[in-house]
Amino acid sequence: MGSFYLLFKSFFLFTLISLESISAKTSTYIVHMDKSVMPKAFSSHHHWYSATLDSLNTVGQTTESARVGTPVPKLLYTYENAINGFSVSLSSEDLQTLQKTPGFISAYPDRTVEVHTTHTTSFLSLNSVTGLWPASNYGKDVIIGVIDTGVWPESDSYKDDGMGEIPKRWQGKCESGVQFDSSMCNRKLIGARYFNKGLIAENPSINISMNSARDTDGHGTHTSSIAAGNYVEGVSFFGYANGTARGVAPRARIAVYKVLWNEGSSSSDVIAGLDQAIADGVDVISISIGFGRFTPFYEDPLAIAAFAAMEKGILVSSSAGNRGPFVRTVSNSAPWQLTVGAGSIDRQCAATLTLGNGLTIIGWSLFPVDALIRDLPLVYNETLMACDSAELLSEFAKDAIVICGDDGSDWKNTYAQQESSIIDSTVAGAIFVLNRSHSLYQELNDFRSPEVMINPSDGAKVINYAKSTIEPKVSIKFQQTFLGTKPAPVVGAYSSRGPSLIHPGILKPDLIAPGTKVLAAWVPNQPASGIGHNIQLSSNYNMLYGTSMACPHASGVAALLKGVYPDWSPAAIRSAMMTTANPLDNTNNPIIDNEYLIPASPLGIGSGHIDPNRALDPGLIYDVGAKDYSNLLCSMDLTREQYLTITRSSSYNCSNPSSDLNYPSFIAFFNTTSTTNVQEFTRTATNVGSGAATYKANLIQPNGTRVTVSPKKLVFRKKFEKLSYTVRIHDRTRERGNIVEGSLTWIDSDEKHTVRSPIVVMEVLDD
Amino acid sequence: MGSFYLLFKSFFLFTLISLESISAKTSTYIVHMDKSVMPKAFSSHHHWYSATLDSLNTVGQTTESARVGTPVPKLLYTYENAINGFSVSLSSEDLQTLQKTPGFISAYPDRTVEVHTTHTTSFLSLNSVTGLWPASNYGKDVIIGVIDTGVWPESDSYKDDGMGEIPKRWQGKCESGVQFDSSMCNRKLIGARYFNKGLIAENPSINISMNSARDTDGHGTHTSSIAAGNYVEGVSFFGYANGTARGVAPRARIAVYKVLWNEGSSSSDVIAGLDQAIADGVDVISISIGFGRFTPFYEDPLAIAAFAAMEKGILVSSSAGNRGPFVRTVSNSAPWQLTVGAGSIDRQCAATLTLGNGLTIIGWSLFPVDALIRDLPLVYNETLMACDSAELLSEFAKDAIVICGDDGSDWKNTYAQQESSIIDSTVAGAIFVLNRSHSLYQELNDFRSPEVMINPSDGAKVINYAKSTIEPKVSIKFQQTFLGTKPAPVVGAYSSRGPSLIHPGILKPDLIAPGTKVLAAWVPNQPASGIGHNIQLSSNYNMLYGTSMACPHASGVAALLKGVYPDWSPAAIRSAMMTTANPLDNTNNPIIDNEYLIPASPLGIGSGHIDPNRALDPGLIYDVGAKDYSNLLCSMDLTREQYLTITRSSSYNCSNPSSDLNYPSFIAFFNTTSTTNVQEFTRTATNVGSGAATYKANLIQPNGTRVTVSPKKLVFRKKFEKLSYTVRIHDRTRERGNIVEGSLTWIDSDEKHTVRSPIVVMEVLDD
Repeated sequence: MGSFYLLFKSFFLFTLISLESISAKTSTYIVHMDKSVMPKAFSSHHHWYSATLDSLNTVGQTTESARVGTPVPKLLYTYENAINGFSVSLSSEDLQTLQKTPGFISAYPDRTVEVHTTHTTSFLSLNSVTGLWPASNYGKDVIIGVIDTGVWPESDSYKDDGMGEIPKRWQGKCESGVQFDSSMCNRKLIGARYFNKGLIAENPSINISMNSARDTDGHGTHTSSIAAGNYVEGVSFFGYANGTARGVAPRARIAVYKVLWNEGSSSSDVIAGLDQAIADGVDVISISIGFGRFTPFYEDPLAIAAFAAMEKGILVSSSAGNRGPFVRTVSNSAPWQLTVGAGSIDRQCAATLTLGNGLTIIGWSLFPVDALIRDLPLVYNETLMACDSAELLSEFAKDAIVICGDDGSDWKNTYAQQESSIIDSTVAGAIFVLNRSHSLYQELNDFRSPEVMINPSDGAKVINYAKSTIEPKVSIKFQQTFLGTKPAPVVGAYSSRGPSLIHPGILKPDLIAPGTKVLAAWVPNQPASGIGHNIQLSSNYNMLYGTSMACPHASGVAALLKGVYPDWSPAAIRSAMMTTANPLDNTNNPIIDNEYLIPASPLGIGSGHIDPNRALDPGLIYDVGAKDYSNLLCSMDLTREQYLTITRSSSYNCSNPSSDLNYPSFIAFFNTTSTTNVQEFTRTATNVGSGAATYKANLIQPNGTRVTVSPKKLVFRKKFEKLSYTVRIHDRTRERGNIVEGSLTWIDSDEKHTVRSPIVVMEVLDD
Repeated sequence: MGSFYLLFKSFFLFTLISLESISAKTSTYIVHMDKSVMPKAFSSHHHWYSATLDSLNTVGQTTESARVGTPVPKLLYTYENAINGFSVSLSSEDLQTLQKTPGFISAYPDRTVEVHTTHTTSFLSLNSVTGLWPASNYGKDVIIGVIDTGVWPESDSYKDDGMGEIPKRWQGKCESGVQFDSSMCNRKLIGARYFNKGLIAENPSINISMNSARDTDGHGTHTSSIAAGNYVEGVSFFGYANGTARGVAPRARIAVYKVLWNEGSSSSDVIAGLDQAIADGVDVISISIGFGRFTPFYEDPLAIAAFAAMEKGILVSSSAGNRGPFVRTVSNSAPWQLTVGAGSIDRQCAATLTLGNGLTIIGWSLFPVDALIRDLPLVYNETLMACDSAELLSEFAKDAIVICGDDGSDWKNTYAQQESSIIDSTVAGAIFVLNRSHSLYQELNDFRSPEVMINPSDGAKVINYAKSTIEPKVSIKFQQTFLGTKPAPVVGAYSSRGPSLIHPGILKPDLIAPGTKVLAAWVPNQPASGIGHNIQLSSNYNMLYGTSMACPHASGVAALLKGVYPDWSPAAIRSAMMTTANPLDNTNNPIIDNEYLIPASPLGIGSGHIDPNRALDPGLIYDVGAKDYSNLLCSMDLTREQYLTITRSSSYNCSNPSSDLNYPSFIAFFNTTSTTNVQEFTRTATNVGSGAATYKANLIQPNGTRVTVSPKKLVFRKKFEKLSYTVRIHDRTRERGNIVEGSLTWIDSDEKHTVRSPIVVMEVLDD
């Protein structure tokens, strides 16, 4: 049964591979070095690292032959942008020797990677008349580096119609490889490189089936086209969601760095891709993969490389992960990354039922063909409704449409089994009446038999009609698409939730962006849907969900903002996106959590749903520099080596450690057994409005807390002026397990700017 | 197993229904009356017919009550154009009385009807630069009446973009009905009427599900859009044959007459439709239905109505039937009809195989989705090759591509059973290696599982690869379309063959036109394809084959010619089409018969494949008038009543009976036991070239015959001059069962015009 293959594939694909591939003899390590102690004799860091490794061969030995049985260490990559150091395949003995050499900071084993997975631009209110699109020239001078599974260069989304000259500062290149010629890049796809030395080192006998930047998975083609795909008309997912596909920044440039392979992945390759992207001169890095929520920053290649990128002014936009709905599942939670959760959009891919009595009901479906179901018998039978026996179905509902039920437990498994029975039977189709929230079913994208899902109240109408009519009939029309559905967005049940296990003191994720049922480019050699058990279907555009799809939306918005404000720091761009994000949905009520069907916590949505046009004019920003992040790291319980692994530089020092980062959100933890129940935060806002402005604080206090802000008014006399304020949070209840939330919003006098920060107060985490 | 449902549906649909629906008490009869004996007291023929029927009630009886048990005759239609007479539902007793009333000519029971089922215009070399399209203004002043299952007015093919004012002479109307509003007609679809009184009379309890001109079958929408559909871009049959759909006469008008119903059909309704079309002022009638090859002309409503149409200058273009490949199966063989057989076009709907060794093979497929089959295991096993056991297939070829064979016997049934096994199994797809002519398989249009058919020599390559490789792999790409395939056309195996059982002395069919895999408009409520056992698929364009599809191609060409030569008689138009038809295919060899794979006989192709641009300038035409057809009828063994049933008029007489019609083809029969072995034919050619012209005869004598033509040169001094010549055919061998063929071609001095007539010589038919 392949029903759920596609559903989960995009989540775990890179988790499932290469775990067993670590050689018993050698392993790959990422080694961080202190460049400041490099002897002057070396002309470059590369020579230094090589010499360091060469020395391993001779330490305590006279000839290489003495090393029989111990493989010679193999240098894979030297890094100079993302980290200072190298990756190397060596034995544990050599590692111990290496740890004693001068300049060594830290080493950790290569890790596996997990990938997190279009009306979306119009749902984001991007338009050609006003706002961020025209202000940024649609991102035309901005380069987005996408670290992923590569690219399918022939996709229409990478055509360069309407694209001007490539920015002169671009240093990247279009690397040739298997089925990939350097001529395949153009003014849209300006760079394509690939990295797999690490993967090969760990699996020397591996056969790389597509040794080039060509995407054989689809994930990278999907994410990069979301961020900056060109306009493509007449696109659909098997007749659903028809329209013009486009990226969030349709005139921005795409440079792809293929680091994930069908055969597996290696963090040394990921770092190599990030290292190269920084060197090539990308403006924004979009990376819809993660190293898991348990990985400390100093061992998380992405967090480490993102620090280097941040120093160069490059925002790293990353996905929160698909481990929801549970709390403490967020990954990519480093304070210098943008962490993006996923929400839905206001589009319903549907099938329309018409009962014999004329009643019309709209349900959910993505059955991928225009199946003809017209005036067929409708079969309702309480026993049959389990739809778990192909024999019974064939006996009682041959060539008919059967009504199936959902017992509410383990719905995904139940549905998979029911669908399998339906495929094996001779029924003509099925109507699934959901007996719990239908909202979760909206996240399904694999309908392999002619099925439609309807909500419980509609289900009652259908069953009532079937029971009260002699020869009940039904027609079903598939491939229907409705826009403007409400409420939207809702947070995907799958979207990982905060707080961060690594550093809970910064509220993560930062915001949400469209990630549920996102249509974007796809590779022709991976299935996009299927029919029955055995038929896999190909499509040039695929509809996927996941924070992997949300991340490039945020990356695209960041690129547009970078186009408008080329001098803004990554933190400033992030701040603009966060303080203008919308905590309300299209019904003007708080965004709903699709798992619990109650208002979502900032632990799910961060500051809210990304709002690009408002981000263009945030009024105030909370800026953060590398030194601030360094001070935060100093406040953590890190060794000097761990600290240097991230910062790479001893030019920062820990003279001023501070856990109170100038972040656009607040999270306060209280210990129910402690008497300390007040926490204080200081923030410094920079006025980026047009001139003098006065902002007043508008506080919504979390239940059971008392929050004060001082001062309550910020009077900026000119542009770029910075003013600070203090927030004191007093938890008065200290109930166990309690999580309460509020917000602080600074509003200027003409209410043109509202600068909102969510506040979360919760019990301190048990480890 | 629905595999062959669609395949045969279009042939037999109207044959299978209403046979059992004749009431035991009353039947419907078509009654022909001699209008010349109508008493002057009657103001109209309608009153006369009514009075005649009223009189049945009183003959020998005083009151209606005396008729208890005998239903009152019910007048259904009075006809005045197609025939003189009426249709009536009455008892056999009343019929006997009726037969004695003055003016009665003949009566015969209502009959059932059978329907005979786009790169085609470019295959016909129609283009906007030269030839028949620009010469005729694409048929803009011509009206084509289509007698069929109605129309789906919302189809894009009936949009009237680019259509000018409707010709003022048009008398038709757009009749309202169920789901059909009179506003649904426009400048393209200028008329829509429906006729079912006859059907209802025979089945009084019938429920007409769509009582309007709306097409609920698809056949009429397909045929009318072939003849004159407007331009529609981006059309395909499930990804095959992509392109712009257009009718043969894209600017001609369409008037539809729905006479065939889902619930059945009645010849009285067909005559009513023809009668109305003649009255409304159509220029060409296209009718892709037939009353069977055994029906004598005087009982064939279509032949009778076509005679009336011919008198009014309306060409009736009709389908030869789908009873091939056997001889003597042609229907619609009246000498005053155009009888159209069906050929293929130079387009291959394909799937491409790529073997693991790189070899690429193109096969036939119409599997309706973009199934992804990439590097799957290829399974060859001699036993498994029967592909007749789902269990064995699942055991040995799960998730693999299996190679299936064709034992050569009863291939359609074998294939249907194999496909069913494949659907029931867990194989991922199948390659069918054909062990006989692959050409017949090209006529299949229903591929319900991922299958591709390949010819025997390619099959040997695939099997050889599979046998000689450790892990053989294959990829298959569906939805491929290739143009320019050779040879084309080939005569459809299904296309009915001559000679006519009713009047063998005129060679039929007259010509062939594209009929195999023709893409044209379709109704959304009938399946166009399917997947597996239970999934039916809808499409706005369908690919069908049959002489039903060939006929409207010829109708469209006739309409274009009518647009250029509005004064030409139906016979002149037909002559132009026949004498310019091409007996050669696109390899310049004789057109092949797709059943026997030898050159087709004129009994299959008539004069050859229609060539519209050459028909525009035929040089000479063989004209025939109503009087000539009357003389031919006089030469047949008909009663006066039978003669009058067809001609309706006593203004013709039988003073000059002649079996030698001025027809553009020759067929001579010899009795092997007789000593008379010479037949003589006289033809009169009219010079329709630009002026004086000299033509020389070029004879190709059939094997074993001696043919002479006298004179051998025709010297026309001016346009419209008529010259006669004589052809003598001497059969010297008189072998039993022998059918030989040749041709007489008149070629003018600059070889601009070649006026070709096929010659068939065969043994006289046994009855």
